[in-house]
Amino acid sequence: MMNGTGNLMDFLDEPFPDVGTYEDFHTIDWLREKSRDTDRHRKITTKSKESYWELIKSLLDAWSGWVVMLLIGMLTGTLAGVIDLAVDWMTDLKEGVCLSAFYYSHEQCCWTSNETTFDDRDKCPQWQKWAELMTGHSEGAGAYVLNYFLYVLWALLFSFLAVSLVRVFAPYACGSGIPEIKTILSGFIIRGYLGKWTLLIKTVTLVLAVSSGLSLGKEGPLVHVACCCGNLFCSLFSKYSKNEGKRREVLSAAAAAGVSVAFGAPIGGVLFSLEEVSYYFPLKTLWRSFFAALVAAFTLRAINPFGNSRLVLFYVEYHTPWYMAELVPFILLGVFGGLWGTLFIRGNIAWCRRRKTTLLGKYPVLEVIVITGITAVLAFPNPYTRRSTSELISELFNDCGALESSQLCDYVNNPNMSRPVDDIPDRPAGPGVYTALWQLALALIFKIVITIFTFGMKIPSGLFIPSMAVGAIAGRIVGIAVEQMAYHHHDWIIFKNWCRPGADCVTPGLYAMVGAAACLGGVTRMTVSLVVIMFELTGGLEYIVPLMAAAVTSKWVADAFGKEGIYESHIQLNGYPYLDVRDEFTHRTLATDVMRPRRSEPPLAVLTQDSTTVEDVETLIKDTDYNGFPVVVSRESERLIGFVQRRELTVAIKTARQKQDGVVSSSVVYFTEDNPQVAEACDPQPLKLRRILNLSPFTVTDHTPMETVVDIFRKLGLRQCLVTRSGRLLGIITKKDVLRHMAQMMNQDPESIMFN
Amino acid sequence: MMNGTGNLMDFLDEPFPDVGTYEDFHTIDWLREKSRDTDRHRKITTKSKESYWELIKSLLDAWSGWVVMLLIGMLTGTLAGVIDLAVDWMTDLKEGVCLSAFYYSHEQCCWTSNETTFDDRDKCPQWQKWAELMTGHSEGAGAYVLNYFLYVLWALLFSFLAVSLVRVFAPYACGSGIPEIKTILSGFIIRGYLGKWTLLIKTVTLVLAVSSGLSLGKEGPLVHVACCCGNLFCSLFSKYSKNEGKRREVLSAAAAAGVSVAFGAPIGGVLFSLEEVSYYFPLKTLWRSFFAALVAAFTLRAINPFGNSRLVLFYVEYHTPWYMAELVPFILLGVFGGLWGTLFIRGNIAWCRRRKTTLLGKYPVLEVIVITGITAVLAFPNPYTRRSTSELISELFNDCGALESSQLCDYVNNPNMSRPVDDIPDRPAGPGVYTALWQLALALIFKIVITIFTFGMKIPSGLFIPSMAVGAIAGRIVGIAVEQMAYHHHDWIIFKNWCRPGADCVTPGLYAMVGAAACLGGVTRMTVSLVVIMFELTGGLEYIVPLMAAAVTSKWVADAFGKEGIYESHIQLNGYPYLDVRDEFTHRTLATDVMRPRRSEPPLAVLTQDSTTVEDVETLIKDTDYNGFPVVVSRESERLIGFVQRRELTVAIKTARQKQDGVVSSSVVYFTEDNPQVAEACDPQPLKLRRILNLSPFTVTDHTPMETVVDIFRKLGLRQCLVTRSGRLLGIITKKDVLRHMAQMMNQDPESIMFN
Repeated sequence: MMNGTGNLMDFLDEPFPDVGTYEDFHTIDWLREKSRDTDRHRKITTKSKESYWELIKSLLDAWSGWVVMLLIGMLTGTLAGVIDLAVDWMTDLKEGVCLSAFYYSHEQCCWTSNETTFDDRDKCPQWQKWAELMTGHSEGAGAYVLNYFLYVLWALLFSFLAVSLVRVFAPYACGSGIPEIKTILSGFIIRGYLGKWTLLIKTVTLVLAVSSGLSLGKEGPLVHVACCCGNLFCSLFSKYSKNEGKRREVLSAAAAAGVSVAFGAPIGGVLFSLEEVSYYFPLKTLWRSFFAALVAAFTLRAINPFGNSRLVLFYVEYHTPWYMAELVPFILLGVFGGLWGTLFIRGNIAWCRRRKTTLLGKYPVLEVIVITGITAVLAFPNPYTRRSTSELISELFNDCGALESSQLCDYVNNPNMSRPVDDIPDRPAGPGVYTALWQLALALIFKIVITIFTFGMKIPSGLFIPSMAVGAIAGRIVGIAVEQMAYHHHDWIIFKNWCRPGADCVTPGLYAMVGAAACLGGVTRMTVSLVVIMFELTGGLEYIVPLMAAAVTSKWVADAFGKEGIYESHIQLNGYPYLDVRDEFTHRTLATDVMRPRRSEPPLAVLTQDSTTVEDVETLIKDTDYNGFPVVVSRESERLIGFVQRRELTVAIKTARQKQDGVVSSSVVYFTEDNPQVAEACDPQPLKLRRILNLSPFTVTDHTPMETVVDIFRKLGLRQCLVTRSGRLLGIITKKDVLRHMAQMMNQDPESIMFN
Repeated sequence: MMNGTGNLMDFLDEPFPDVGTYEDFHTIDWLREKSRDTDRHRKITTKSKESYWELIKSLLDAWSGWVVMLLIGMLTGTLAGVIDLAVDWMTDLKEGVCLSAFYYSHEQCCWTSNETTFDDRDKCPQWQKWAELMTGHSEGAGAYVLNYFLYVLWALLFSFLAVSLVRVFAPYACGSGIPEIKTILSGFIIRGYLGKWTLLIKTVTLVLAVSSGLSLGKEGPLVHVACCCGNLFCSLFSKYSKNEGKRREVLSAAAAAGVSVAFGAPIGGVLFSLEEVSYYFPLKTLWRSFFAALVAAFTLRAINPFGNSRLVLFYVEYHTPWYMAELVPFILLGVFGGLWGTLFIRGNIAWCRRRKTTLLGKYPVLEVIVITGITAVLAFPNPYTRRSTSELISELFNDCGALESSQLCDYVNNPNMSRPVDDIPDRPAGPGVYTALWQLALALIFKIVITIFTFGMKIPSGLFIPSMAVGAIAGRIVGIAVEQMAYHHHDWIIFKNWCRPGADCVTPGLYAMVGAAACLGGVTRMTVSLVVIMFELTGGLEYIVPLMAAAVTSKWVADAFGKEGIYESHIQLNGYPYLDVRDEFTHRTLATDVMRPRRSEPPLAVLTQDSTTVEDVETLIKDTDYNGFPVVVSRESERLIGFVQRRELTVAIKTARQKQDGVVSSSVVYFTEDNPQVAEACDPQPLKLRRILNLSPFTVTDHTPMETVVDIFRKLGLRQCLVTRSGRLLGIITKKDVLRHMAQMMNQDPESIMFN
């Protein structure tokens, strides 16, 4: 996945890395980035006192953060709007076409129609199914088969286009992107992952993938798209483009904007970024993320892709409160969500591992085609899987109002009853509801199985929507069951207290919502952000308790089977060097157990402050691939004086060899403060390199508990740390060593950690 | 303030501190607390495999965090409900009494009355003003004077009781408590600040203070009360009571619960705790805070003190959207908010400094009495200051519906117009509105001046409500002005586009809300949490943009005059050792500039690993008051091997002297690993103290930029850090040194930092 095969357009991405930047697949040093930014800031502040022009420049610099946020919000909102419109149109294109304007979706086509009832509007004459258009017949077996065939064909076309575009132009555009973004935000460099081509191709292929009817959603990829926007605008300001730490602050905010437009939940988006995605999240970022999320949400609303001026994806309004006794089914849904999460993560990871290790991984296009074929063939006959998943969830969340014409609302009405719009009492289920029930059951099994195989294919694929769909279907089924039980058995002790005959006790839509939250929680292990996103959907605190109960249960059940959510599992599967903030390291090991060199290994590669020659250094650089070398007083005393970066050492020696007279292979490299005394005139010119020496390397003693070391690496974002005892240098611990050690301690495959 | 004079009941608080705990007014070591908790956890996990009973105990331990949250939520919600009810009753008691039941407030008294219109209900016969009850006359100058007199008398009585209770029983119960809680959460110990007596007295005196009609609110103190609850429940579980780090996690969550009940805004509460109060806020705490905040909110709703099943303090519903052109007055309100914030902070700090340094501070009771007298005398004649501030804000926020009978809604109605309930077009203002306008203007000036003198007196006092009141008054005035302008000048270019005659363009209530947000933001510099709290009040994303615009403007304007909010200013005034996460340290100083000993000072007090005698150590302990001593190899080599805590050293030597034979003053103290070789038999028995030696003290080199050192202190929560150069120990930097240095760099009084 990370090989970057076929990354033809790389030259359009970042330019060749300068000195001072990091190499691809390396970890950044947060402390160093921060101090570089402070230096820059200090320089600007000093300069700003010199002239008005500099003052204006410094003000522009101070404002650039907000400008970037504004731009990110606007572009993310616009892209989300365009994606929504395109997906709507192309999803409907699989079934038919609008005669008045081919670029209208079914809903837009019939919007201007004269038919006034909801039922008729669905069947307005301007909208024609393919069979009707081609043969003139809209009914009958022939028309059905033709529609079926064309549905599958369109689906295959869309997904083939999607996977081909990804393969040829931007291999990084596949998947949900959230595991990689988490890793990048934690300080890893994956060049091109957030590039312009990834942005463009991911946007286009996301539309194609979602429209093809595969069991995937657009939420995760939207976060990736938003981060690409963030990276794009970073390049406008050197403050962000030249500092990997500052860049990551912008990306955190962009992730919030992405979730904000995915669900229309700005606060939820910020909390998602804080809880799930981000690594370093200072308060300044919180405020800016909120701004970006709001701008994105309002841009999306201005585009108004759903045609209802609603910000949120699934707007729901319920008219009945919930009752204490209902907590039992809600918690059961939580258990279901947790089990689904476990099943999904285990199944999906097993399948993805098989993809990585067997021949399967060699034929990504074929895999996508086959899965799309199976999905389309199985989905068409069932009305609940044929339509787009978001529409399905929307219908499942809905409360059956008086004007509802859906099959799910086909209840037997009491003819004597006047029908108030809002407060409809519980009624016995009609035949439509029973048909819906078994269709939903089939849809549930289908979604559960197919989603496991879909997530991780080489096309953009999010799992929020499929997970929510699984939960919503299960929830609605449970909701209808409870409702019918309450209707038919008013006298049962559990219903007696709160459900009198003729009352509206149970809202099956609420069960669907609780189920969706539980399943999403089981897969991602989100907690606060999940509840807040759901709260923003309903807009009332009323239903927070059911949602929380389900989310907590689902998290606990899923955690009992394995601590990791789907994103962490994928990070581990791909071996990214991600130091999770949430993993508690509780083992009794010490720094001395982790540091290198181990007892059997050759001694640490060090430089001495005044006795290494240029040739020695060059040999060391050639023979090793370490990122840097500690500098000690002498090999005997081993007292540490600093740390020098490999890259800077290489450049410094190269420059000196070219430009500085008298520097030859036998020149001695000096890291000392005072000028070296050249004993004899015939000695070669010394090379003074103190300026590239980092005089404040981070050290711990060999007795430091690893628990503390892990904490330091996490909180300070270190790349490496030197180990000393009573002032003597003993060894080095890199982030890679820490990760390898943590994996060992958890009895996991230590080889899966990608080397940095 | 921190002297704890008259802290009679201290024996009821924490027991005498054990070894291993911290002394009063000292800073905790976060890393040490964390590693102690890991040890504890490791022990329980190991034990849990031994027997079922231990397994159950370990499960109980794992659950105790949630149990504490549940208890905190329930107690906080209950206390908030009781406070609300009591304040309602006692505020009305100043004006009159309910004849049907003396413990009914005015509203409760007239609730059951037969009068049906709103106007009449206000004047129901069961409720009698004092003059009416005593003299039988409800009108006339005599009755007015008598009511006036009794109003002032009640106010004086309440405030006298409040200040006396605070003085005698719990001096820590005064003020808002948020500055101290911020300091405590950052790792400072103030014993008794969150004790049982503080909880009890603060609850009672808060009711008295608010009822007395002083210009103060209950929001800040409620956070303090919630934290006291948190501390109370911590003592039930050794996991929390014995670990200062874990205790602070609980307190962070309790603060969220406090804000949650203060405003009925659980999400806002969590964000307030995250943004404003907390220091160390791991994700686990986020989720638990949310739980505590929700439990508290729902407990409060179950008590239902406002009698309207609403969770929120000021529930508002507006029926008109806002227009782009209105952003101009909104931003002006933001500017006003920022100016008010600056004025308030400067004025209040100047007054509090005067209180600290002059005779004024010696007579806190008199001060409270005088301010109450002035407040009551000036407040009674103006209907907008006579009532409680929350009621005032509530009325100012309200949109004038068709049924509104308030003076603020006295518009001239078009007799030909049918009045729809929701959509009332703009109308010309009637005489009532004009009267209201100048009364509001007077109230504004009064509130601005009196609040500056009220906040900081020796009674519980929050500043959320007074700040919001100032903003709401200013906002409403601006709102009415814009509304009338729009009505009378439909044809002006700025109104032309969006305000046709007969349309409902301007909602003065929204202006009041925006003004309140701006003023609160100016004083506290809250951002995200402020907007989210306001969002939870209105429940719609619609008005977030005006609120954000005002909040951002107000923050920028206020920041231009001084970076610190009121809480930070009070922290500085009181000299608490608080290391603000938000202060960016950007100076070029190095660790060597900050460490002690300075050049002119005597050398660092160190112990050697194998050549210090017991007597030397005892002398060192007697002569210095350092928290601990570095241990070096020898005075010549100065190579650091560890750090030993003063407290542990004292205890170890004392124990050894008592229990260990042969340990005399001339015994050598050994910190080495291998057994000391006693050369001759006559030598005194050596004392081995390696077990109390911290072998992993935190070190930085002398060339480390202070910016990095500050970052390390902040993120790792260190108490002290040793400074080395090439392995040689040079000096020590404590948190106090860091704070002093930061203050110096900002040209502030370095002496104001309280010593730890």
